[in-house]
Amino acid sequence: MNNSNTLQSEIDFYFDFASPYAYFLADQLASIAKKYGSKLHWHPMLLWVVIKAQNMPPPMDFPAKDDYMRRDMDRSAAFYQLPFQLPESFPQSSHLPARLFYQLNRDSEKLAADFAMKVFEKFFVEGLSLKEPENILQIAEQLGIDKQTANAQMTSDEAKSMLAAANEKAIQAGVWGSPFVCIDDEKFFGVDRLPQIAKYLAER
Amino acid sequence: MNNSNTLQSEIDFYFDFASPYAYFLADQLASIAKKYGSKLHWHPMLLWVVIKAQNMPPPMDFPAKDDYMRRDMDRSAAFYQLPFQLPESFPQSSHLPARLFYQLNRDSEKLAADFAMKVFEKFFVEGLSLKEPENILQIAEQLGIDKQTANAQMTSDEAKSMLAAANEKAIQAGVWGSPFVCIDDEKFFGVDRLPQIAKYLAER
Repeated sequence: MNNSNTLQSEIDFYFDFASPYAYFLADQLASIAKKYGSKLHWHPMLLWVVIKAQNMPPPMDFPAKDDYMRRDMDRSAAFYQLPFQLPESFPQSSHLPARLFYQLNRDSEKLAADFAMKVFEKFFVEGLSLKEPENILQIAEQLGIDKQTANAQMTSDEAKSMLAAANEKAIQAGVWGSPFVCIDDEKFFGVDRLPQIAKYLAER
Repeated sequence: MNNSNTLQSEIDFYFDFASPYAYFLADQLASIAKKYGSKLHWHPMLLWVVIKAQNMPPPMDFPAKDDYMRRDMDRSAAFYQLPFQLPESFPQSSHLPARLFYQLNRDSEKLAADFAMKVFEKFFVEGLSLKEPENILQIAEQLGIDKQTANAQMTSDEAKSMLAAANEKAIQAGVWGSPFVCIDDEKFFGVDRLPQIAKYLAER
């Protein structure tokens, strides 16, 4: 508790669209933000770019940990009562939805957040590939966005620059995994930190 | 739920004495084991030996993650309402208490578990060095064990062999971090998995 408790809290949610634990956290984090009147900002990034800059190896590069995580993902999805199937191609680069996200986000944080939730569902429930532009554009279309406009936005140099800037922002914020939540000077890694995030917001 | 639900569950608790998250888990895991009538087996190991065998780097070798973990350890201790201060020398080799543990454990799992809880407290609450034999022997003495006998046990070749065998057992079990809990074929990494451990035992 400090003097800031009269201010609305700002929650920065850094994640990779291809991170199962980010999918597990997203909806719960949105609920908690709402409960505590906090403003939630979504920051998709490319985890491989961020951890490379932090000189860290990919989390699943080690057989013992890889075995563990694949089982833990299924068990955690069941624990959080979320539908889930690990996509056949995993891990996978998520640059396409991340690029379109930042274009949508410029006009409407709400629309971009809705798009992000749908991307998680398409990838982790329906198993669609994030590397296939058509899959991403169909999600945009379902949200009432013109497909041709979305395609132009997603493939623009500006979108690439926005994602590169987002990766850099994450690196500067000390992010080294996904999901990663920053509130004030506090950092929380993993869906497991949800109870500590709730406690922090409650006592702020 | 399966046919094994009529059998008492066996919980294998792998940990390094110098792991704060193992300290955070130990007492809660003992309580949950008691609640569900499970048998808790303590398996101290040397984490650096185990992760080296799994071809993994030490968890705090990366500045961004190291910064995060030091803050997270304090915050997690507060979250679990446990007294805690990170020892000045950290990380630290825990071979001395681990060696004595296995000697005590041969005679009494109960005595060895009591010794383990006290080691955690001395290291993470009082800040005593685990590398100083006298500190370990004083803990043994407080449990009614003759210091000279404990010293002979701790420094014996047999104790070294027992710890080496324990490290190997952990590696074979797929352990790659501390704390690490195995029940049946399920593996749980981290104090964060306590709710999933409880759910597994409840539904077993």
